[in-house]
Amino acid sequence: MNHKLFLILLIFLGSINIKAQDNSLEEIHLMPWPQQMKANESDFKITEEFIVFIHGEENEYGRISKAAVRFIRYMTDKTGVFVINGFPNPKGIDASAASLHIYFDNEVEVAMGIDESYNLQVTDNVIEIRAKTDVGAMHGLSSLLQLIEIKNGSYAFAGVEINDEPRFVWRGLMMDVARHFMPIDVVKRNIDAMALVKLNVFHWHLSDDQGFRVETKTLPELYQKASDGLYYTKSDVKEIVKYANDRGIRVVPEFDVPGHGTAFLTAFPELGSKKDMEYSVERNSGIFDPTLDPTNEKTYEFLDALFKEVAPLFNDVYFHIGGDENEGKHWDENIDIQQFMKENELKDNHELQTYFNIRLEKILAKYGKSLMGWEEIMTANMPKTALIHSWRGVNEGMQPGESLVKAVKNGYQTILSNGYYIDLLLSVEDHYLVDPMPDVELTEVEAKRILGGEATMWAELVTPLTVDSRIWPRTAAIAERFWSAQEVRDIDHMYDRLSTISQFLELMGIQHLKSKEYILRNIANYQDTHGLRSLTYISEPFKIYSRNAGGTEYKTYSPFTLFADACTADAKSVRDFRQLVDNYIKNPNESLKKELDDHLKTWEGISDQLKIIEPDAPLVSRLIPYAERVGEIAAIIAKVLNSNVISSEELKQLKSLVEKKEDPTVNLDVELAVANDIMRLAEYLAKN
Amino acid sequence: MNHKLFLILLIFLGSINIKAQDNSLEEIHLMPWPQQMKANESDFKITEEFIVFIHGEENEYGRISKAAVRFIRYMTDKTGVFVINGFPNPKGIDASAASLHIYFDNEVEVAMGIDESYNLQVTDNVIEIRAKTDVGAMHGLSSLLQLIEIKNGSYAFAGVEINDEPRFVWRGLMMDVARHFMPIDVVKRNIDAMALVKLNVFHWHLSDDQGFRVETKTLPELYQKASDGLYYTKSDVKEIVKYANDRGIRVVPEFDVPGHGTAFLTAFPELGSKKDMEYSVERNSGIFDPTLDPTNEKTYEFLDALFKEVAPLFNDVYFHIGGDENEGKHWDENIDIQQFMKENELKDNHELQTYFNIRLEKILAKYGKSLMGWEEIMTANMPKTALIHSWRGVNEGMQPGESLVKAVKNGYQTILSNGYYIDLLLSVEDHYLVDPMPDVELTEVEAKRILGGEATMWAELVTPLTVDSRIWPRTAAIAERFWSAQEVRDIDHMYDRLSTISQFLELMGIQHLKSKEYILRNIANYQDTHGLRSLTYISEPFKIYSRNAGGTEYKTYSPFTLFADACTADAKSVRDFRQLVDNYIKNPNESLKKELDDHLKTWEGISDQLKIIEPDAPLVSRLIPYAERVGEIAAIIAKVLNSNVISSEELKQLKSLVEKKEDPTVNLDVELAVANDIMRLAEYLAKN
Repeated sequence: MNHKLFLILLIFLGSINIKAQDNSLEEIHLMPWPQQMKANESDFKITEEFIVFIHGEENEYGRISKAAVRFIRYMTDKTGVFVINGFPNPKGIDASAASLHIYFDNEVEVAMGIDESYNLQVTDNVIEIRAKTDVGAMHGLSSLLQLIEIKNGSYAFAGVEINDEPRFVWRGLMMDVARHFMPIDVVKRNIDAMALVKLNVFHWHLSDDQGFRVETKTLPELYQKASDGLYYTKSDVKEIVKYANDRGIRVVPEFDVPGHGTAFLTAFPELGSKKDMEYSVERNSGIFDPTLDPTNEKTYEFLDALFKEVAPLFNDVYFHIGGDENEGKHWDENIDIQQFMKENELKDNHELQTYFNIRLEKILAKYGKSLMGWEEIMTANMPKTALIHSWRGVNEGMQPGESLVKAVKNGYQTILSNGYYIDLLLSVEDHYLVDPMPDVELTEVEAKRILGGEATMWAELVTPLTVDSRIWPRTAAIAERFWSAQEVRDIDHMYDRLSTISQFLELMGIQHLKSKEYILRNIANYQDTHGLRSLTYISEPFKIYSRNAGGTEYKTYSPFTLFADACTADAKSVRDFRQLVDNYIKNPNESLKKELDDHLKTWEGISDQLKIIEPDAPLVSRLIPYAERVGEIAAIIAKVLNSNVISSEELKQLKSLVEKKEDPTVNLDVELAVANDIMRLAEYLAKN
Repeated sequence: MNHKLFLILLIFLGSINIKAQDNSLEEIHLMPWPQQMKANESDFKITEEFIVFIHGEENEYGRISKAAVRFIRYMTDKTGVFVINGFPNPKGIDASAASLHIYFDNEVEVAMGIDESYNLQVTDNVIEIRAKTDVGAMHGLSSLLQLIEIKNGSYAFAGVEINDEPRFVWRGLMMDVARHFMPIDVVKRNIDAMALVKLNVFHWHLSDDQGFRVETKTLPELYQKASDGLYYTKSDVKEIVKYANDRGIRVVPEFDVPGHGTAFLTAFPELGSKKDMEYSVERNSGIFDPTLDPTNEKTYEFLDALFKEVAPLFNDVYFHIGGDENEGKHWDENIDIQQFMKENELKDNHELQTYFNIRLEKILAKYGKSLMGWEEIMTANMPKTALIHSWRGVNEGMQPGESLVKAVKNGYQTILSNGYYIDLLLSVEDHYLVDPMPDVELTEVEAKRILGGEATMWAELVTPLTVDSRIWPRTAAIAERFWSAQEVRDIDHMYDRLSTISQFLELMGIQHLKSKEYILRNIANYQDTHGLRSLTYISEPFKIYSRNAGGTEYKTYSPFTLFADACTADAKSVRDFRQLVDNYIKNPNESLKKELDDHLKTWEGISDQLKIIEPDAPLVSRLIPYAERVGEIAAIIAKVLNSNVISSEELKQLKSLVEKKEDPTVNLDVELAVANDIMRLAEYLAKN
């Protein structure tokens, strides 16, 4: 969407009910929230007569037919309705009989900036999706699916009229498949989930210190020596690109150079900046020194050969070369490199890396690709055609989005990932409120250079078993940030809808709920998981990389089937409890007291539930001290709540219990996520 | 194993404790049960110091290293232990430090008849696996993994000495991926599960009336027109073959001809036996008429081209051509075919099909393949090199295994699937007690021709979501039948071990438990699933194809997310309840009465639990009448149990409630699996 249209929309949006104060819209749990939506009084009941008709010529791709078949599959799986016709435009049936009409003008090649708008109307008798492109029509199907509601004991589509289009053209999810490999089924189900929430860029981080993940015929050493046998065949890659394109999603590959280069150098040590070093695939997490030698012509021959082979596997124009976190230690230590810099008047490592990047840009151009890279590539001489991926923020000692503003002021197009690092395991709110459009004055031209953003799923601490629960459902809220109007930022409304989208994500094959239960079964050694489950509802994994102190506690081959892996950010009971505390402080009454007490009783009982299964479940024993602490905290606050008296001694004891840390050697790696609210309640009770 | 050795083993086996009466063996839940096993007093505690050393030269395949890495992964995932060394033979560490030593003589090409024996010793300080081949060593790892036990609050390997080898060389699982396509991740996780229970043949049913599932460059119409876009690329096929071989498993493809040919004829109608027929991919289940024309030379040109392209994708010598269930209707109707038969002195359709099969055998021979087919291929002139797959039994109006005996008497090698049709959803006992070796007198040579058997997972009523729960855990018991000594057939001992192997199957990635919970969540519309779960524990899906009356109730695109899909054969509470009834009848006492009553109370309460969630979950409403009936039955029998009085009126009412059928239009499709035992208890109570 261009900037002018965006401004017009902003004005227009002032008048619609973003917070769904309208009674009918209240029940619609769409995510992302559409640009315009009106509820009507209709409901389209889902019956066996449901028929889909596609109007519009399908040519090369045939994507919309496939999308319609998937839609029918999802709809029947969810509702249990046996439709008579499982395929669109059934033979011998007239279009006039159709339930759902899909109209579109053109099939388009999936690329940045294509028209993604759609119109969707649901009335009692008929549903219509109208779009300029088949991709827009597919967005209409994603919205329609989420309109499934229960009316009069049946499943129906809620009556609405929607006019919708995205705010940003670049709405991405990055998956790191280098640190822990993600098989293609994991990638595919995440692409399905992306399509549901209208994300449109799958950024595939394919190489890093911990592995190189693509088969290459010309350089087989890469996957043979640096993947532990875990890599995508070229046919897999093509399949994923097609799978994503079929869902209107672009695929941008990343091969991270010159830093994060251990996997490259495990296969080709002669290209390293430190001579005679024995490189081997990294098993720890962190920032490492192995770096390609930018002064060695063989490095460029190698990258030329690599890009020549892999570039054609991807049909998107963008090609991400990483470029981040190269601290240049091995450059400083190498006298030949120092000599080269002197001869070429390269003042510092930044200039040397720019020299490297510019050479890469030329190589990529030969293969029809535009270079993009993490923000460190933005140095003085970098051509303006490069796309800058802004990522650093407070954790890296920078202002959030600092490089984004710098990029657009310097004439670069850019996307934002700072604020969308979902591997930090922060609350979804923290991500949801970050807007790609910075709060600084920009000219229209500058603002237009901000294309959107990407959530980043770095994989130090996730495996195929747990990755879904780290990405979803919270990335749906980030997707809303990228798609919906800037004003859509009501936290409660977002949370209400997030729990619904979580169910649709499971319909797409996302394993966040399934895996959690499996991990609990395993911890409990297939005994009762009730107590464990209650404990996950108030426990959140350590945030901001503190789970993996120094990057060495967890190796790539460590178990990720621990209690912390069954826990998620935004633990289930935390928000409920917070709201109860808020309400109680505002209006302390018996009914709220009872609800608070129910929570506290549950928490008090957990340690006993664990002790029953402990003798036959060694993984439970390490949780007992934590569960006991939680129980003691709950007991104190319950007593205070019921007696309305808290001694300073009790308050002190509570504080000390809340602040107590578990023995780090047992890798509990979770924090009590209701701690602040418990202390808030205690302090309120102490005052009253 | 040859027949002589088998006889020797039989004699030897008389002396070992098959039923694990030995106290120490009692706790070992291995499946399949080894040929020889002695428990010792040791336990090898699993700690972070665990190190694997492989002794023996790895050449071409490097399979055992990969297997060892997988082993470490499974072990750490299960136990949560952070091992220091995640890979075998760690650098800088001496073999003397190793925990697990793997010795083997040769890497072998995976093929029928390779040595699969192994010896496994676990003592307090060291574990040793010794095998002639790497495949044998991998079987040792599968056994070792299952020896994980809990001792003194820690995970440990149970101390044993095992000498083991298979009874039969052919231990297969057939997956039908034609009727419902199974993506490669589904295939892969099932191959992992096969390896766990030492199955060694993956029979891949790749074509049928409902779809053709392999990419072919020379005949692209097949997958383009007859797969709905659901097929394996050639690269996928190679990947699966390698994946299976890496686990010691052979892959035998099946392309079913000349019957079951609708998919072929959808792409190439000109090869059909009925001229000018418009063929299209079948959406129903059943036996259909479309059949390749065996009198058309183009049919052989076509099959030659197909086999030429696909045969090299598979490295096993056997190639399955189906050949089943051709009723020849279109042959009878085609005057040209009738004329051809007359000219060639082919008396009947059997002789015509033999003519066809013999031509196929010659084509396959050109590509280095041996023909195998379902038992119908065994006609008068069929060469003895063909392998006969015996499948028909009582359901088809034959004696079970009739064709197996006929085959060996006629000089054919054969395998048995009758008795192992897991899609019938019979109890695991029914399969477990079927022995591939028939109860008739055979010469040594004849007996040797019985190579083993295959469980068959036909896919009319399964999808990727439910297929695992139909195959597992029960196929583990069939695997035991194929591997273990004939005398290992104690039902209680099998059931005890089956529940343990079920947990290890989940560790392999099998989704039987995860999918069940997902289906219940969906039915409950993400409300409380407690009542639904209790109901699944006493409900079993309709057996022997009665779920799908006439093959038309369920289309390939019907929903398989219904209550029946969450239920399984051998429902969880059925055996418990049966044993309680048995015990109570033997010795009616208060303690047993209490246990029976607990079950009955649970069942009485289900309908109320469902009614609470029903208003917001349309899929629950169809279950209410059934749940109410279950509740009424439970209430009557509970009353009788406690009062010790049953009137003939009550008995009649009970009988009528037990026999009542649910409204077929709601597709409940389950039966109350405790019905017989309830009536048994009622009749006992009536008599006493």
